[in-house]
Formats: sequence, structure tokens, C-alpha cells
Amino acid sequence: MIVALDAMGGDRAPVEPVHGAVLASRELGLDIALVGDAAALQVELERQGGTDLAIQIVNASEVIAMDEQPVQAVRQKKDASINVAMQLVKKGEAVAAVSAGSTGAAMASGTLSLGRIPGIERPALGTIAPYNDTGILVLDVGANADCKPSYLVQFAKMGTVYAQKVLGIAEPRVGLLNIGEEETKGNELTQEVFRLLQQSDTNFIGNVEPDRIHLGIADVVVTDGFTGNIAVKSTEGAAEFIFRQLRTVIMSKTQYKFAAMVLRPALLKMRQRMDYGEYGGAPLLGVNGVVLITHGRADANAIKNSLRVARESANSGVIEALRGSFSRGERAAVAAAPTSVNSG
Amino acid sequence: MIVALDAMGGDRAPVEPVHGAVLASRELGLDIALVGDAAALQVELERQGGTDLAIQIVNASEVIAMDEQPVQAVRQKKDASINVAMQLVKKGEAVAAVSAGSTGAAMASGTLSLGRIPGIERPALGTIAPYNDTGILVLDVGANADCKPSYLVQFAKMGTVYAQKVLGIAEPRVGLLNIGEEETKGNELTQEVFRLLQQSDTNFIGNVEPDRIHLGIADVVVTDGFTGNIAVKSTEGAAEFIFRQLRTVIMSKTQYKFAAMVLRPALLKMRQRMDYGEYGGAPLLGVNGVVLITHGRADANAIKNSLRVARESANSGVIEALRGSFSRGERAAVAAAPTSVNSG
Repeated sequence: MIVALDAMGGDRAPVEPVHGAVLASRELGLDIALVGDAAALQVELERQGGTDLAIQIVNASEVIAMDEQPVQAVRQKKDASINVAMQLVKKGEAVAAVSAGSTGAAMASGTLSLGRIPGIERPALGTIAPYNDTGILVLDVGANADCKPSYLVQFAKMGTVYAQKVLGIAEPRVGLLNIGEEETKGNELTQEVFRLLQQSDTNFIGNVEPDRIHLGIADVVVTDGFTGNIAVKSTEGAAEFIFRQLRTVIMSKTQYKFAAMVLRPALLKMRQRMDYGEYGGAPLLGVNGVVLITHGRADANAIKNSLRVARESANSGVIEALRGSFSRGERAAVAAAPTSVNSG
Repeated sequence: MIVALDAMGGDRAPVEPVHGAVLASRELGLDIALVGDAAALQVELERQGGTDLAIQIVNASEVIAMDEQPVQAVRQKKDASINVAMQLVKKGEAVAAVSAGSTGAAMASGTLSLGRIPGIERPALGTIAPYNDTGILVLDVGANADCKPSYLVQFAKMGTVYAQKVLGIAEPRVGLLNIGEEETKGNELTQEVFRLLQQSDTNFIGNVEPDRIHLGIADVVVTDGFTGNIAVKSTEGAAEFIFRQLRTVIMSKTQYKFAAMVLRPALLKMRQRMDYGEYGGAPLLGVNGVVLITHGRADANAIKNSLRVARESANSGVIEALRGSFSRGERAAVAAAPTSVNSG
């Protein structure tokens, strides 16, 4: 079971991706295909003493940079590392692909190379909010800036299957990200989605406000990709501000500095807790294969975790379960309520 | 110059509102009209030893609870405390109104009782993000869940005037809250608003991602009320989670507890820094009068700050400046580009 890693394109490529692969192979026994500029990857792998590990190098002659227009670049650069990694999955030579480069390019390449699972209108990017031991899946956090109501109902179904298979939650509770708890709250989209989710076969528990996600009241939180991205980045911004502020305050007095030295392990642990990388990257759900996307600034540890989750996901049978769920779901939806599911 | 305070309806009413009024009158010399159940307010004012201060009580026979449907309740309960407070402003008996009750009711009552400033399509709720000394105005954070592009252009203009007059920023930089920096990023709404803001006479600096607001790159950040509310609540949720987590970690080891005792003043200062209440509540912009809305769980200190900002706002001439700006602005817009400003 080989996991393909697009080792190019990120802010710290190829050093951190190669390091992450070395850690995953050495500590977790993973088989990895490093995809990218073969010469550069070989040099880096040797430098890190990883040539004796189960890591092979697969050459790709092109790279998609972080600031390129994703869809266009994915189409034009056929031999881009992200496309080559996806092709390994498509050809069955790898069981999953992990990207450490441009998120947009990984979403575009995943969708274009692997295709959608039949019955799924739009793939969604999920993220695991680091608020409890299982993690809370929030989706979509960026694949679809404008969503029809039916997309969010599908996100709820995809999220349910993912939470069951990968997070190990038997009956995932689904919440709708909204600005109030009551049914009547929200914008036109969330009001319509609320109605559709009530009629769906997901375990819908109602609206969840963003300041209540961390209480763990839902296992899966669905939203459109614009709102989800705003929520995730607001959370990250608050964490960054607080830790920066904390550093400033601590450095302002000598006795604070000494106290902070004692607290340092605890503070680091907390900072790590807030780090999404710990949870193994963002799954791209709805495409025909396991795809995980890490931050462009992911470090070796985050990449190691993504490789681990990628293999676990492949083993979990989540793709097969999604195929089963949507082939059944589509037939049921068509039979029961063809217009309401596709309205808006 | 009397500031009217709706002292009913909040989670801690009337104790905290009366306490806030006592502090504002005693420490800042404000004249205050406490609006609500006169008997209850009199008892509380006596209990807090505030009867010698410049605080008068204005009776209101009804209260709008936090969970009532706002517009309906504001229309039906004519003598609700929030309506009576707004009427004091309308009649010129108070220079500003501060609410410590239901946010929805305060927005509805402000709009219905005071009316909109001519030329303004929709009032917006602002909030002051506590990231620097002046504060960063984010609007709309909840008044309009679904927005036309033209609303956001008006929010940018209202925000500019508010930042000039109340925050004291000569040339406020306006940013558009979005999920990427590039012009092409975002949903249909933000893409259209980007284009309109480029053509506007505001000092538009482009898109601002939520995790970059705290860097202070813009003084005014505009967004639709749904997205703004999601962003604010995500930030609050992250802060709550981090401080709760910090407490847990600190309590886990004896040496951490001792270190935390030393750091306690610093941590409290930081927690306070993250507290929106410190900045005086959320201005309702676009109505014919100064209206500030505090959290339903606002404490006395937050209410004192709101009363202070309310008087400062009235003194600043922000309402007159908004009237001037929009009477000019409307004429200019009609002359220059009637269709594009109202499209969408």
C-alpha cells in the first residue's frame, strides 16, 4: 500500500515533505512515493539519510506554484507533481495522495484527475477542527464558494460517512453552521438547507453557531465553502493573535519570563492542540480516491500525520462506503423529492 | 447630554446595567436615563448606593426577552424598554441609546423608531475588533443576513465616516472580508463588491482574509451580516477554547499552578484584551441617532464603556457627518453610475 506524496510546491518544499516522508516511513512503516523533481528529491532524501527506507521517487517535470491560477495550471501542466501523484492513485499504483503544495491546485487536480463519485454534485474540502479527541469534521471549507442547498445536504451525507469510517463515530451528529440556533435564523441558503436536512436521513441536530463548535455538540458541521473558509481562518487568526499577545505580555516583565519558562511545555502542548496539522490535513471528499491536503506551510510532523491518515483512510473503506451511500442515496432522493433536493 | 440605557432584557439585568450606569456616572460624570421597570430599577439603584448620582429612571412597562422574535416583539410591545429608550433619542431627550438586552430587538427598535438616514439602504451592525489601540471596525456583523453588493459599498462609506469621527482615523483604509487576497477570489457577492469598491470614493485596499484582520492592515472591514457574524463568533469561540484549554493544562501540574499564579495578572490582561466589551459595544450604523448594542451577557464594566462611547459618539458629530456624506454620496452615485451601484 503506497501513499503518493506531492513533495513540491509548498513553502518548505522539498525539505519538509521529504522529512515528513522519512518520519512516516521510519516511525510508522509506510510505503511512500515521493513525487516531484527526481534529482532534487534524491539529493534531499540522501541528505536526510532516508535512502534505506521504503520510499521511492517518481519524477514529475513540472510544479504548480502557490500563486498560480489552480484550474488553468492543472490543465496546462500535465506533468505537474500534483497531477502525477493523482495519476498514481487513478492507476491503482498508490492508495491515496497527499499534497503539500497549493490547496487550489490539489482540489482541481483531485477533481479533474480522479473524477467525482457518481451521484455527488460537488466535492468538498473538509477540515478536522482540533476540539476533542476524535476531531470535528467541518465541510466545505473552501472548494465551493457559492453553493446550492442540495450541495450542503450532500456534504452532510459525505461527512457522515467520513466520520463513521475514518473518525470512528458510529452515529455522527450533523450540525448546520449558522448565526443562531433557531430554525428561522440565518440567510436564505441556511434556512433552506435546514429544511432539507430535517427531511434527510442524516442525524441532523440543528444549527450550530461557530462559538459552540468547540463544545463538541456536533461531529460533522456543514457549511458552504466561503463561510467555512471564513470560520477556519477566523479561528486561526484568533489563535495567532492570542499566542503573539501572550509572548509580548510574557516578555514585558522578568518574573513573567521565569514563570513562562516553567509553563513552556504546557504552552507548547496547547499551541500544538490548536494546530490543525496535528490532525492530518484536509480531506477532499467526493472524488474517486483518498486525497488529503496539508497547508502549504506544513512542517514534517504535519506531513507525517497526513501520510498516516491517508493510509488509515484507504484502509477504512471510506471511498467504497461513499460510493455505496450515494448510489443508494441518489435513487432514494430521486424517488422521494426530486425538486426540493435540487432547488435553489 | 443624557444617554439612555435600556436596563432590561439582558442575562444580568437589571443588576449589571444599573451597576454600569453607576460606574459611568460616578467615574466619568455621565448623565444617564435608566429605562425599564421603575420600581425594580429604583430598588437596585438604592441597593448600589447610586441615588445621589445624575441618574434618572424612566419607566417602561414591558420587556423584550432574549428569545423573542425581535421585529414582532418590537412592533407589539410599544412600551418595551428598548422602544422607550429609542423614543428618548427620537424626541431629543437623550443624545444616544445603549442596549444591554436582545441584539435583534435593539436593531429592530433602532431602525423602526429612529428611521434610516436618507440615502442608506440598510443599517449595519458594527463591532470593534480589539486588535490594536484604535480598534478595527468590522461591519455588518449581523443586521443583514442576505446582502446586495450595493449594501456593502454603503457599509464601506458608513464605516469610513465612523472610523474618522469616532475612532479618530484621518483616512481609514477599507478592506473587504474575503477568502483570498486576489481580486478573483471569493463568492459572487465579494467579486462584485470588489469591483464596486474599486470604483468608489473610499480608500479601498483590497481583500482582507480573516486571519489577517489582527495585523491591522485595514481600519474598516466590510462584509455581509451573515459572514461577519460567523467571523466574530469563530474568533470568540477560539478565544474561549484557548483560555479554557490553558486553565486545564495549568491545573494538571503543581509547578504549572505556581507559575500561573505569577503570570495571572498578565493572563487576565490578555483575556481582557480579547474582550469586545472593553471597546464599548457594537454601533448600529445608518439609523438616525447614536445606538450602541452590548452583549446580552455584558457586565458592568462593558456597559460603562458603552455609555462612555455613546456620549463620545454623540459629541463626535458622526450622525451629522453620515447625513452629509450620504446626501452628497447619493447624488454623486446617481449622476455617475446608477445601474452598477444598485445591481445584484
